[in-house]
Amino acid sequence: MGDRPISSAVIKRLPRYYRYLQELNQEKMERISSEELSRRMGVTASQIRQDLNNFGGFGQQGYGYNVNYLQTEIGKILGLDKTHNMIIVGGGNLGRALAGYTQFENRGFVVVGIFDANPDKVGTKIRDNVVRPMEELEDFVAKNEISIATLAIPKQPAQKVADRLCRCGIKAIWNFAHVDLKVPKDVYVENVNLVESLMQLSYQLNKDRNRD
Amino acid sequence: MGDRPISSAVIKRLPRYYRYLQELNQEKMERISSEELSRRMGVTASQIRQDLNNFGGFGQQGYGYNVNYLQTEIGKILGLDKTHNMIIVGGGNLGRALAGYTQFENRGFVVVGIFDANPDKVGTKIRDNVVRPMEELEDFVAKNEISIATLAIPKQPAQKVADRLCRCGIKAIWNFAHVDLKVPKDVYVENVNLVESLMQLSYQLNKDRNRD
Repeated sequence: MGDRPISSAVIKRLPRYYRYLQELNQEKMERISSEELSRRMGVTASQIRQDLNNFGGFGQQGYGYNVNYLQTEIGKILGLDKTHNMIIVGGGNLGRALAGYTQFENRGFVVVGIFDANPDKVGTKIRDNVVRPMEELEDFVAKNEISIATLAIPKQPAQKVADRLCRCGIKAIWNFAHVDLKVPKDVYVENVNLVESLMQLSYQLNKDRNRD
Repeated sequence: MGDRPISSAVIKRLPRYYRYLQELNQEKMERISSEELSRRMGVTASQIRQDLNNFGGFGQQGYGYNVNYLQTEIGKILGLDKTHNMIIVGGGNLGRALAGYTQFENRGFVVVGIFDANPDKVGTKIRDNVVRPMEELEDFVAKNEISIATLAIPKQPAQKVADRLCRCGIKAIWNFAHVDLKVPKDVYVENVNLVESLMQLSYQLNKDRNRD
């Protein structure tokens, strides 16, 4: 497994497989055919087979997929079999919401530190975390095993903060700032641009209105 | 313009063009070649030309693109030349963060109502909005011109709420619940699954660790 690079489109679909398999598992379903999985997920059985073949298959002819095994294996590929410590930079509305979101912890993403440049926010509490000053960032990252840093700050300071994070060894940045970050090749950035997501909806609404 | 269907990949790239053009506009740049835009955006000039050709081009040979004109036109395509009233269902951490996010309003997405099923939350204030009980949903949508409904609720109640929204004429749902909603064909759903977004990062971290 793993010499061929797997397309990012397949990687993006894996969490959805994981979610459906988890639901099947909760329904106590032991095995499922690619046809039945295809019906539930609304994608073709051939796409399912192709996608899962990237990882060595998991399916057996005439048996289908073992639900529990497949969920576990996809979980391992996604790195969900271990805990990821996460920090959040930005203690505003968004940072607080992310810090308060229990679903991340259920999946092994644990917020262990929150940072803000605003002295008024430093010292306030969000769930179990006290907001720390930005000056403590490097020291905190050095002393705790942080694998993911979340940027919940405006675009203007985002690149500078990303530079600091990269310098102290962070390899994964979850970026909510509306800017394309420049980072070294071995650092991964996952962008969540909420405004651009809304624009997809306004595009659709607009298109339909033009058609009328 | 408009007879050929435009691929969703192109539509997904349009907000990024819009963002870069806005920045160029703020820098008072009047025109830009596809080569220079390509350098800034980190995509090929030929992709830029191809993407923008979907909408009739906008470029002139030997002149490049008029920044202001191109931004305006892409804005119109994305429906950003008008205001979109939005409601949020769910007054928890996430709903409150979304309601408090001023950037949406800057782009014409205005939160005019927030709803929650929990009586403890009803009546509390988030910026200019008072959280309303779910019973008022249909009446509120009927009386206000709502174009987008945001679901900031857990997956269990999400489908039922989506059904109610579709019945009262909502055509665009911004879905943060971790579930694939079933909706009529003329209703658009844009999913934001934060946990699955995090999984893209843990996949990358995991892949690199396996390689070591």
